Amino acid sequence: MAYRLGIDIGGTKIAIGLVDDDGEIVHQGKFATGETIRSYDEAVPGLGGLIRSFCEHLGLEAAQIRSIGIGIPGVIDYSVQTITSCPNLSALDNLALGPCLTEELKIPVWVENDVNLIALGEYHYGRGQGCSDAAYIFVGTGIGCGLILNKDLYAGSNGTAGEFGHMTIVPDGLQCGCGNRGCLEMYCSGKALTLKAQEAAVAHSRGWSSAYELIQAGREGDPVALPILEESFRYLGMGIANLVNLLNPAMVVLGGGILTGWPAGLQTVQDVLRSSLREIFWRHLQIEYPLLGEKAGLLGAAVYARSKAAGWS
Amino acid sequence: MAYRLGIDIGGTKIAIGLVDDDGEIVHQGKFATGETIRSYDEAVPGLGGLIRSFCEHLGLEAAQIRSIGIGIPGVIDYSVQTITSCPNLSALDNLALGPCLTEELKIPVWVENDVNLIALGEYHYGRGQGCSDAAYIFVGTGIGCGLILNKDLYAGSNGTAGEFGHMTIVPDGLQCGCGNRGCLEMYCSGKALTLKAQEAAVAHSRGWSSAYELIQAGREGDPVALPILEESFRYLGMGIANLVNLLNPAMVVLGGGILTGWPAGLQTVQDVLRSSLREIFWRHLQIEYPLLGEKAGLLGAAVYARSKAAGWS
Repeated sequence: MAYRLGIDIGGTKIAIGLVDDDGEIVHQGKFATGETIRSYDEAVPGLGGLIRSFCEHLGLEAAQIRSIGIGIPGVIDYSVQTITSCPNLSALDNLALGPCLTEELKIPVWVENDVNLIALGEYHYGRGQGCSDAAYIFVGTGIGCGLILNKDLYAGSNGTAGEFGHMTIVPDGLQCGCGNRGCLEMYCSGKALTLKAQEAAVAHSRGWSSAYELIQAGREGDPVALPILEESFRYLGMGIANLVNLLNPAMVVLGGGILTGWPAGLQTVQDVLRSSLREIFWRHLQIEYPLLGEKAGLLGAAVYARSKAAGWS
Repeated sequence: MAYRLGIDIGGTKIAIGLVDDDGEIVHQGKFATGETIRSYDEAVPGLGGLIRSFCEHLGLEAAQIRSIGIGIPGVIDYSVQTITSCPNLSALDNLALGPCLTEELKIPVWVENDVNLIALGEYHYGRGQGCSDAAYIFVGTGIGCGLILNKDLYAGSNGTAGEFGHMTIVPDGLQCGCGNRGCLEMYCSGKALTLKAQEAAVAHSRGWSSAYELIQAGREGDPVALPILEESFRYLGMGIANLVNLLNPAMVVLGGGILTGWPAGLQTVQDVLRSSLREIFWRHLQIEYPLLGEKAGLLGAAVYARSKAAGWS
């Protein structure tokens, strides 16, 4: 049996999965990011050591691993296989992680944006299988988006496609950390709802300080929370309508912690889509939840490693 | 020498070009749409007759034409090769134009959206050659957009991709004919500027009734016209920034009569892009004028016919 390693490097945890060619995660482990990636210089030996000990622990030799896919919360410049921007894990900034780990381990290693790999995992083993075009949108603290176009991951000319959260949804609107004003992420995300909760707490004497508390209040029917949540997801609906007008995907897969917390948001999104898209655009569109949860990123990393290494191993 | 016919069917004129494999338009003709396509029933015999007489006039036999590509101002459902929506030429609505003409002429005929074929023509013989991903945007009476992604025309799951003009740019903004509110087309297009000109004529005692007159006044430095044009192209810039965030094309090709009339709009668009996109997104992006003008649609139709018929002839 041939195996791949799928790895997801997050700000606090590194998940590793041993994945077989049927897309089964045979073994899985989680490790603290801070202990493995202490600095730019220690990132490659740190990750190399972690991968080696993960394999040893399973009684595997490195040669049994065909290739490795790694998801990182940043942007990769494919032309030089270098991480050009990794805001929450700056030790990886400007690191040619793929080539360096390939050299270190003598196994081909490919690095991609984490949300792109989640989209790829869902597309291959979860929701959206068989669609030629699908958009995967995750509303969590921020908004993540991965695109499958013409049956393949679409990353754009410089690997930065899918910045759906930084679509201007309100001209001259709220200042976003990216430098732009009125980004969707400032209106519908954990970050946005936390700000809204804190504003509403002051204005309406509520004890809210987080998105979670606002959503909890909404679930209990609080008349202040409900219109805030409704408005927030209306903006998400407008953003998705814009994406659909531009890309005409067969499916939009919509997930993430904020949507899971407030599933009524899906109905709001669908109402906006129905009222703003022409019937011919709306008729064939499916909006669905993702199916794989945390596994998606590891499976996507393994799929990516398999496809990229096809000409290698 | 192998020839293709490239045909562009517009609301008033039908252009036909005889195109060789080097992308040269060897011969070209223009005909009145109304005399050729009188009704749904007469569309296929009408077009068939026009194509036959065009060839006869050139001393060509049908067998010398390898395939035919046709651009129409509407949407095609690829699964059944049927025109599902053709607002300005309703005789073509629900017509399986490609298959019917193929049957009529015994030459493979392929039908696509006209703006998609203009994008394809520019991409192959004009601006954007060699880019893996490029967006072609034309600001005329309305806004047209064709996408080249991964070096090929991207039409979406149902052929409706590229509806850039119906991106919501102002939430709950101006009512658009499509049923949505706040579409970009209501803020930056010939239609939009005509409305703005008429409003400003009343409010500021100007003699304007058309976009043309507003633009003319802007060129003469009129202090009422200038901010209207500036604002209009700022919205276009926001729309393009949204497209770039989502798709990360290497190039945006920007043309059409309104932009040609008001070339300062290009600077406005670039200013908006520079201020709203992160540097990593902006750094590699090229904004360029198209190169081919009217020829683009005929050449794109011929390219399309060649690529689609590759497995056919």
